[in-house]
Amino acid sequence: MIQVAVNTPQSLMARAIQLAERGLYTTMPNPRVGCVITDSKGVVVGEGWHQRAGEPHAEIEALRDAGERARGATVYVTLEPCSHTGRTGPCTEALIEAGVSRVIYGMQDPNPKVGGKGLQKLRDANIEVEGPLLEDQCRALNPGFIKRMTLGLPLVRSKSAMSLDGRTAMASGESKWVSGPAARADVQRLRARSCAIVTGVETVRFDNPNLNVRADEMALELLAAEQAAEVQPLRVIVDSQLRTPAKAFILQGDAPTLVCTTERADPERRERLERAGAEVIILPQGKEGRVDLLALLEELARRQCNEILVESGATLSGEFLYRGHVDELIVYLAPKLLGSTARPLFELPIERMGSVLPITITDMRAVGHDWRITATTDIER
Amino acid sequence: MIQVAVNTPQSLMARAIQLAERGLYTTMPNPRVGCVITDSKGVVVGEGWHQRAGEPHAEIEALRDAGERARGATVYVTLEPCSHTGRTGPCTEALIEAGVSRVIYGMQDPNPKVGGKGLQKLRDANIEVEGPLLEDQCRALNPGFIKRMTLGLPLVRSKSAMSLDGRTAMASGESKWVSGPAARADVQRLRARSCAIVTGVETVRFDNPNLNVRADEMALELLAAEQAAEVQPLRVIVDSQLRTPAKAFILQGDAPTLVCTTERADPERRERLERAGAEVIILPQGKEGRVDLLALLEELARRQCNEILVESGATLSGEFLYRGHVDELIVYLAPKLLGSTARPLFELPIERMGSVLPITITDMRAVGHDWRITATTDIER
Repeated sequence: MIQVAVNTPQSLMARAIQLAERGLYTTMPNPRVGCVITDSKGVVVGEGWHQRAGEPHAEIEALRDAGERARGATVYVTLEPCSHTGRTGPCTEALIEAGVSRVIYGMQDPNPKVGGKGLQKLRDANIEVEGPLLEDQCRALNPGFIKRMTLGLPLVRSKSAMSLDGRTAMASGESKWVSGPAARADVQRLRARSCAIVTGVETVRFDNPNLNVRADEMALELLAAEQAAEVQPLRVIVDSQLRTPAKAFILQGDAPTLVCTTERADPERRERLERAGAEVIILPQGKEGRVDLLALLEELARRQCNEILVESGATLSGEFLYRGHVDELIVYLAPKLLGSTARPLFELPIERMGSVLPITITDMRAVGHDWRITATTDIER
Repeated sequence: MIQVAVNTPQSLMARAIQLAERGLYTTMPNPRVGCVITDSKGVVVGEGWHQRAGEPHAEIEALRDAGERARGATVYVTLEPCSHTGRTGPCTEALIEAGVSRVIYGMQDPNPKVGGKGLQKLRDANIEVEGPLLEDQCRALNPGFIKRMTLGLPLVRSKSAMSLDGRTAMASGESKWVSGPAARADVQRLRARSCAIVTGVETVRFDNPNLNVRADEMALELLAAEQAAEVQPLRVIVDSQLRTPAKAFILQGDAPTLVCTTERADPERRERLERAGAEVIILPQGKEGRVDLLALLEELARRQCNEILVESGATLSGEFLYRGHVDELIVYLAPKLLGSTARPLFELPIERMGSVLPITITDMRAVGHDWRITATTDIER
């Protein structure tokens, strides 16, 4: 007996989600969107996905792929088609012009100013509109874009590596050890999907990291890796007194570097860093004269950052957590015990059980010899 | 088409292993053993497993089940049949008398004084002997028995519960929180398979635990749970100065309690604890006048303890680890962050990366809302 695969609306939307995922590393600051077009018999006649900002949206790619077969067709698209003219023309118009008869969307546009308008335009043109379909999965494509559109803040991921006993480095600072090669490749992919990587001046001074995306370390197919590395995330240093050395690796390479400081900083140091290629901005002061993290996040949202990755030591990571700014915690657990004098995972001054931070572990998997724990914080905003 | 299940030697030994597992909580100090007997056509004619010390071995149970059909049969048994007379007659004789023609064994007897002798007796009686078969799985039934027979020491499991950031309690000691009900049931089952539960006097004084096996908290079928709870593990307190309160819960209930102390201890306190029902023994002193842990383990092996469970605070657990006595680490990870002032998982005074303890994570799984991490230590003995 030959088994025939039957396309269902769910399977077609799932395919559109797969297509959208191809833009995981490249669509920023735009959302990742995928699109599938089927004819009246349910046969796929066109596929597309958004690849890069400034290039056609997923719907346009799929319409081009379908050509004349788009007439009377059904369109599955993970995100409500846009009705405004950005760098490209509105997708709703293109769909109407192509003569499609039905549009099934995965989720509405999260931007409260435009959400629903695209769907209305399609309905006004007598196109049948249905959705949302597989909404949770479609939302999962763009957690950062959605948060920025709804709250005006980027999604914050915090990445750390620890031993089984929750330590990141020896008391002396000795630390060049934690994760294995598979975990390091995983971190490269986390960076590549981020719009900005945020670190603290202490990490810059002691570990001197590049914090760039390196195609050859992503463990992806070469073409995908090279495309991912083309869009380097912004490197951000939180440095209230501008103690970043002008020769730090993080100021070198192709990716731009933003140094966030306060009024306390010495103007001469500022000039030196600017000469080294960094952009330096002054942000409001928070606790103890440090850079106010909420102001930092608002600044990054203004710069259209969807997802940001905090890769820093226990102090800055702990402060992001303590202030409730972390959406997702990623912890690589290495099969070692570093002992009780070693450095903690997060500097978190919690004194009583009542103040303990609850989290929800959403994923736990082996990554080479390490384990990756993904958790969301259960902080009420 | 009807699918016919065909018995293979592997599937029959796997069945014998399943039978052996029924004795997981009850055979101590004996090993867990299972046995399957098949006729010349490969059809199962008898099954048995060892249930309790003093009761028949697995082979005898299976021979009784098979009756006359044992003549000319093949016997699958997870452990080499015994050739010595213990509390029951030797199994080799029974197999010879029953007229079986073939014995397939899972693993040889780990006791170097008798290993191979049972097999030889069978061969001498013209019984065909084959094995080992599924040896790793058969060994996994009895890690503690094997270690005791080969090294004269019990297998040591260390059980802890921690937050994602590797903390067990607040600095103040506040800790009645860590694991959820599924993890607590899992701990009950860990206790039930152990011959002894070892804790420190600090845990007794501050947490006042029972450390007994409670049938209604094991999340097993009632009969299995009740049988498991019948064999209460020995409760052991490491207490170099006999500071255990005479009214501690751990001295109450049906399970015996052993207090291990040193010559430093006050004889009056000793009498008081003995009057409260405890057995008190004096062991050699180790570092800083504490009870020497190797002497403790040797004592427990003399008392025929196969598997012991260390359930204590960071100090005693850390010392077991630091001295290389831990075979298996079990850590329940609760979805919380306790912060950097909270208490560490293990007191382990490691100063340099070169002294870091490597471990191997062998299992990681969700247990209710918690996660259980199982690891072996990679310490060379």
